[in-house]
Amino acid sequence: MRSEERLQRFERYAEWPLAAAALVFLVVFSVQVLAPRPPREAHILWLIDWSIWGMFIVDYVIRLYLAPNRWRWFWHHLIDFGIVTLPLIRPLRLLRLIVLIELLQKAVGDAFRGRLLVYTTSGVVLLIYSASLAVYDKEHNLPGATINSFGKALWWSITTATTVGYGDVYPLTNTGRVIAVLLMLGGIGLVGVVTAALASWIIERVAEEDAENQAATVAHIEELRDEIRALTRELKEGLNNDRHP
Amino acid sequence: MRSEERLQRFERYAEWPLAAAALVFLVVFSVQVLAPRPPREAHILWLIDWSIWGMFIVDYVIRLYLAPNRWRWFWHHLIDFGIVTLPLIRPLRLLRLIVLIELLQKAVGDAFRGRLLVYTTSGVVLLIYSASLAVYDKEHNLPGATINSFGKALWWSITTATTVGYGDVYPLTNTGRVIAVLLMLGGIGLVGVVTAALASWIIERVAEEDAENQAATVAHIEELRDEIRALTRELKEGLNNDRHP
Amino acid sequence: MRSEERLQRFERYAEWPLAAAALVFLVVFSVQVLAPRPPREAHILWLIDWSIWGMFIVDYVIRLYLAPNRWRWFWHHLIDFGIVTLPLIRPLRLLRLIVLIELLQKAVGDAFRGRLLVYTTSGVVLLIYSASLAVYDKEHNLPGATINSFGKALWWSITTATTVGYGDVYPLTNTGRVIAVLLMLGGIGLVGVVTAALASWIIERVAEEDAENQAATVAHIEELRDEIRALTRELKEGLNNDRHP
Amino acid sequence: MRSEERLQRFERYAEWPLAAAALVFLVVFSVQVLAPRPPREAHILWLIDWSIWGMFIVDYVIRLYLAPNRWRWFWHHLIDFGIVTLPLIRPLRLLRLIVLIELLQKAVGDAFRGRLLVYTTSGVVLLIYSASLAVYDKEHNLPGATINSFGKALWWSITTATTVGYGDVYPLTNTGRVIAVLLMLGGIGLVGVVTAALASWIIERVAEEDAENQAATVAHIEELRDEIRALTRELKEGLNNDRHP
Repeated sequence: MRSEERLQRFERYAEWPLAAAALVFLVVFSVQVLAPRPPREAHILWLIDWSIWGMFIVDYVIRLYLAPNRWRWFWHHLIDFGIVTLPLIRPLRLLRLIVLIELLQKAVGDAFRGRLLVYTTSGVVLLIYSASLAVYDKEHNLPGATINSFGKALWWSITTATTVGYGDVYPLTNTGRVIAVLLMLGGIGLVGVVTAALASWIIERVAEEDAENQAATVAHIEELRDEIRALTRELKEGLNNDRHP
Repeated sequence: MRSEERLQRFERYAEWPLAAAALVFLVVFSVQVLAPRPPREAHILWLIDWSIWGMFIVDYVIRLYLAPNRWRWFWHHLIDFGIVTLPLIRPLRLLRLIVLIELLQKAVGDAFRGRLLVYTTSGVVLLIYSASLAVYDKEHNLPGATINSFGKALWWSITTATTVGYGDVYPLTNTGRVIAVLLMLGGIGLVGVVTAALASWIIERVAEEDAENQAATVAHIEELRDEIRALTRELKEGLNNDRHP
Repeated sequence: MRSEERLQRFERYAEWPLAAAALVFLVVFSVQVLAPRPPREAHILWLIDWSIWGMFIVDYVIRLYLAPNRWRWFWHHLIDFGIVTLPLIRPLRLLRLIVLIELLQKAVGDAFRGRLLVYTTSGVVLLIYSASLAVYDKEHNLPGATINSFGKALWWSITTATTVGYGDVYPLTNTGRVIAVLLMLGGIGLVGVVTAALASWIIERVAEEDAENQAATVAHIEELRDEIRALTRELKEGLNNDRHP
Repeated sequence: MRSEERLQRFERYAEWPLAAAALVFLVVFSVQVLAPRPPREAHILWLIDWSIWGMFIVDYVIRLYLAPNRWRWFWHHLIDFGIVTLPLIRPLRLLRLIVLIELLQKAVGDAFRGRLLVYTTSGVVLLIYSASLAVYDKEHNLPGATINSFGKALWWSITTATTVGYGDVYPLTNTGRVIAVLLMLGGIGLVGVVTAALASWIIERVAEEDAENQAATVAHIEELRDEIRALTRELKEGLNNDRHP
């Protein structure tokens, strides 16, 4: 079996366990940030967290090993490298959720507007939730922080992603501001997809109403074929009559 | 008569009375929130309010009863279930207005841009008005509230729906923030529809200017048919001449 | 000459003088608001202002008189009625500028993207300038006003129309808020037109790159015609040979 | 050789050195603003800055000299005139970066969506970076300035370009506000391009799914041609049989 095929087969098998791990991680991270547990439970969560990291590292190493051209694979998967190396910076662990988004992206394979909207919406919901977690984790203990509860973090994420930006709540740290930029980009993307899907839908509906041109073309061609067939019949009969008058 | 037909017939008959009830409810709710009446009148408004709720419950029960598959109908009409059960939470009574929007949506049945814009605009106006009512009702008695008059509630709703978000006025309660999110989504939808309708219109106008390709196609086909007809005539005459020279 | 024709002829002649009057009014209003003059000059400006109003009234009365069906005309021209009757409320005098926008709209008669963008841009510039004037006129003398200079009024108008809404400057009066809503709508329209024009342009460019399908169709039809013509020639020759072998 | 040709040849040769000079200038300006150097180094930076200005002046003069119609060239290149004369106002020196954007614009010559997005993104990144530099340079020493670090300037630029506008940071000077307007326009453009590219992409994908109509048309035409060819064969054979029965 060729190396590339083995890589693809591994990726196909690893896909769902990794997505499940990312989901478990989301739950664990949520609990760690929102409801700190007593030491015993916290330790278990800590173990799960690091095990999931371990899974990602193992996945990365295997894929790198199976890649036909390892240097090329490395440069094309810098995000995966980030997922594996950056988690020492706490909020960046959420990068692992990209695995979930990638899975969703695959689900939209034979994309039509409906699925695209579902995908974008779930992507933005995931982005808003994890951004709220990350910004709350980073800022809620800061003196003078306006983001001092998870509710406010969520409120801030939503006002940022929709580009409303009241300014009653805003981040103070650089990490918070980087998260804000990601949210704004996500928001622009959401507005873009909603508008674009609507535009595509309206254009289609208007075209249906004004279907005369398009329909006419097909109708004309059918008409043409009928005339050519009539001509063929005529010719055959004429020639037959000539031969057997 | 089959069960499904009876359901459809009932829905057709119930449509307008329910829409009227939703409209009356909007007026009653507005009066209750904006201009509290003396006990006697308040009592009448209270009666109307609960009667309308009764109408919605009766409508829900009849439709559930008539549905061919009740479990399926229940899961497909969770919003209606919410309209019937949630009104104990006061601002959520405004959910009943969805009946109006559904009626409007039906009116756009053979959708073209003009109607779509009318529908979106009226939907957003309804959303802004009811959001202002709900947020004013919830927040104007709070200490430190910035939304302390209906005018400010209206101003806040509009700045939120257009994603301007000055931040001079903003909600303090969770209910207020949920309303804000609905407004933002409505605003994104409005921007989307306006942009999409404009895009569809511009694309159409530009295509009209550049109609050569399209027109040429039809023109070519008409030309083709004429040539085929000429050929048929030619053939008929030729064959006739052969037979009767 | 029929009544309708006379109305149209009058409107054609009155168009440019009215637009010129609206422009003069914009200059006069600007001077009145931004640089109050000594009594003598102020009196002249006041005279010009009211003369222009007179022109608009005369225009309205003549058009109403010439209209074939006066009631219908009245209901179809409520905005013109507003221009004539509302100016007692000062900032609403700027409604007269609609005459300018109508003229621009006509100039876009054979609309393509370029002209549309020029029209929208000039419309938004006019809207921002007159909104700044109106809001400055109304708010700069208020205690606690944040819009206390024309520069700030302009800054506020632009941040509102682009839906940025910092909140460092915001209106306090209801008039100011109504102007804000107009600006937001104008801003949404501007974003919509820019996006829609870009979408139309991109779709065109992408279609040009992928022109095979379209070109193929036309090419096929030309090919078809050639084959039919060859057939016709063949037939004619064949028949001729039959008759004169 | 004709004057126009010589102008074009000169522009082709001068393009890259000028773009390189603009890039060097960006680095020098960044150092001057963000990390003021000791006198000796500052003097070198100052020399480089003015040499680059000199290059732009020489380029401008040569192009004006080579232009076939100098007055027309002057009016069509007012921006270049501004680049050459305005730099006395410090932040306006960044206008020179237009040379870079023009080069990028040329790179998008055979524009498809991907390149367009790359171009827009890099243009907006350049705009945000240079706007942050300019606003920081102008405002960080002002008493009461909220833009008092380069980080805050960057944060402000991004919140402005995405039209979020929290209002925690905002410019106080007129220069700062003019920069803000440029950022807002850039942001509207970015949203527009993203949305338009998405719309074009979605329309294409939906059309691919619904390819029946288009495919049918081509298929019909192929069918037609086959029928005409069969007819031609039939006719030839028939005529041959007539002649040689």
